[in-house]
Amino acid sequence: MKAPIDAADATIGVDLGGTWLRVARISPEGRVDAMDRLPTDVAGGPTGVVAQIEAMTGRLGADGIRAMGVGVPGSFDLASGVVLGIPALPGWVGFPLAETLRDRLKLDCTLENDAKAAAIGEWDAGAAKGFRNFVYVTVSTGIGACAVVDGRLLRGAGGLAGEIGHTRVAETSERCVCGLYGCWQALAAGPALARRAEAAARAAPESALAALAAVGPLSGFEVGRAARAGDAAALSVLREHAALLGIGFANLQHVYAPDLLVVGGGVSDLLGLMRPQLEAVLRERLLPGFRPAEMRVAALGDVAGLIGAAAIARSRSTEGRLLWRDGPNAAGG
Amino acid sequence: MKAPIDAADATIGVDLGGTWLRVARISPEGRVDAMDRLPTDVAGGPTGVVAQIEAMTGRLGADGIRAMGVGVPGSFDLASGVVLGIPALPGWVGFPLAETLRDRLKLDCTLENDAKAAAIGEWDAGAAKGFRNFVYVTVSTGIGACAVVDGRLLRGAGGLAGEIGHTRVAETSERCVCGLYGCWQALAAGPALARRAEAAARAAPESALAALAAVGPLSGFEVGRAARAGDAAALSVLREHAALLGIGFANLQHVYAPDLLVVGGGVSDLLGLMRPQLEAVLRERLLPGFRPAEMRVAALGDVAGLIGAAAIARSRSTEGRLLWRDGPNAAGG
Repeated sequence: MKAPIDAADATIGVDLGGTWLRVARISPEGRVDAMDRLPTDVAGGPTGVVAQIEAMTGRLGADGIRAMGVGVPGSFDLASGVVLGIPALPGWVGFPLAETLRDRLKLDCTLENDAKAAAIGEWDAGAAKGFRNFVYVTVSTGIGACAVVDGRLLRGAGGLAGEIGHTRVAETSERCVCGLYGCWQALAAGPALARRAEAAARAAPESALAALAAVGPLSGFEVGRAARAGDAAALSVLREHAALLGIGFANLQHVYAPDLLVVGGGVSDLLGLMRPQLEAVLRERLLPGFRPAEMRVAALGDVAGLIGAAAIARSRSTEGRLLWRDGPNAAGG
Repeated sequence: MKAPIDAADATIGVDLGGTWLRVARISPEGRVDAMDRLPTDVAGGPTGVVAQIEAMTGRLGADGIRAMGVGVPGSFDLASGVVLGIPALPGWVGFPLAETLRDRLKLDCTLENDAKAAAIGEWDAGAAKGFRNFVYVTVSTGIGACAVVDGRLLRGAGGLAGEIGHTRVAETSERCVCGLYGCWQALAAGPALARRAEAAARAAPESALAALAAVGPLSGFEVGRAARAGDAAALSVLREHAALLGIGFANLQHVYAPDLLVVGGGVSDLLGLMRPQLEAVLRERLLPGFRPAEMRVAALGDVAGLIGAAAIARSRSTEGRLLWRDGPNAAGG
C-alpha cells in the first residue's frame, strides 16, 4: 500500500480509442504536460494494448506518478475494472483491465467511459468548471450527452443515462443508425447537416455552397465557411439545422434542468453561427420558470477525455472517493 | 434545540393543495395513521392556511412529534423554506412557510415540491422501495416526472428537472396547454386519450365505447371499462394510446436509464391493459444494452405525497441530512 498521491503529482490519462491509443501526463491543474499516441494494436488484443500503454507511459516518464485513468469506448464494471464490451475492439470481454494495469505499472488505475471522461475533463478544467448543473453534448456523427445534475455525474442503470441522441423528437426522419426513425441524432447530427447542405446546394446552383459542393462532399466545415462569407444558402441551412438542434436542447433542459450546455464534436464549430436561432428555439419552447441555458463550445477539444480520465484517477487516489461526484468540483456554479 | 426525533416517533405530512389541505400523522414505517382534510383557505392566504394546519395538527395529536414535511404545489427556496410562488394560491410569494410553521408548532419543518414528495413516498414506502434508479411518472391531465438516478432524487437548476411532459416527441399534436405542439403530454396524457376515445366511439357506433359515450363524456375510466369487456374499439384506442405513451417511456429510459417506471395518475389504472403494447414499443425503440424497465402502478395513491413529505422531514430530523438523497434508501435495488 503506497501513500496517497500528493496534490503536486501529475497523473496519467489514457484514451483507448478504436483507432488511436493516446497516453498523456496531466498536471494537477488539468493541463496536458506531455502526450504520446500510437495506432491501437487492435489485432494484439488486451495483451498488445497493455504493452503499448506500458511502453508509452515509460517514455512519458512515470516517476512519482501513482494514478492512471483510462477512458474506454465501451462498458465495464465500475467497481472491479473488468471490461464488459468494447464495440470497436474485439476480444476484450471479461478482461480485467484496471487490475492488469495496476499490477504491471504499479499505479492506481481507474476506468471511465470515454464520453463521461470528456465531460469530467470539461468540468474539471474546461468550459463547465464550477457548474453544478450542466449537460455536455457532443454533436458529430451522432449525438451523445453526459449530464451533471446537482453536482453529480449521472450514470443510471448500466451507466446508460444520457443516450439523448436516440430520444424520439419527430415522427419522421432519415433512418437513424439505430434502425429507427425520428431520433434526434437522425435530424440534428453531422450527417443530417451534410444532407441538408447538399440539398441546398442543388437548389441554389449560384450559391457559394454549390461552388464548394462542386469540389467535394459538403460537411459542417464547408457550410460554416460559406455562411461566414454571407452565403444565403448556407445561412438558411444553418437556420434550419439550428431549429432541429434547438428542439433537442429544449428537451435536455426540460429533463435535466442544466444552467449550461457545453457543446462538443465537429458541429460545435458552428455554434456561434447558430446561436441566435438556438436561443430563439429555447425561448419559444421552454416552460415558464426555465431560463435558456448558457451555451458554450467545449474548451478542451480532443484532450478532454484524457484530462477527465486523469482527474478521476487523481480524485480517487487523493481522497479515496471521486471528487467529480462528491467533492470540491460540486461546490461551485 | 430539541433532541433528534426517535425512530419510533411519528411525523406529520402536509399536502398543501389548491383545493384541499390535508394533514396526516405518518408512522415510522410510512403508514398513514390518521388524516384530516379541509378545503384550503385560499382567500385567507398564508395566515389562514397556517392556522388551518395548526388546528388540524392539534386534532391529530402532535404530542411527541418533532418533525413536519409540507408538499407544496409550486416553487420555494430549499434552504430557507421561503415560498417563491404557488400558481394555485395567490398571495404566497415570499412567505416564510417553513419558519412560520416551526415557530407556531414547535416542530422541525421541511418543504418539498408536491410531485417530488409523491415520488419520495413511493421510494420510501411504495412501489419503488429499494430501487436506486427509477422514474415516477404521473399521467393524468398532464404528464410529470421525477427521476431518481444513482440513488439520488434529481433537482437540477431551480428544481426543474423532470418536466418530461413538455419534451417534444412529434412535429404535430393537438395544441398543448403550454401553447406549443408536439409535447409528449399533448399526445399521451388523459385529455388525448379522451379525444381518441370520442373519435373511436363516433367511428364505431355499435361499440360499447359508443354506448358509454351516449351517456356522458368519455375518459380513461370508460375506455378501461369497455376494453375489459372486450370492446374492439376501446382496445384499439388503448393500443394507439400505448404507442404514444411508450415513445415517451423509451425517451425516459434513454435519458435517465431507470430500472423501474412507477406510473401514477388516473391513466395508470390502464397500465395492465396497455402493458403488452408498451413493452413492445420499448423493445423496438431501446438501444442495445438497455432492457425494458419494469413498469409498476404507483402503490400509495393520493397519500404518496403525504408519506413522502413526512419521510423527508423524518430523515432530516433524525440524520441532519436527507435519507432519500444519501442514506439507506439509496442502498437497495
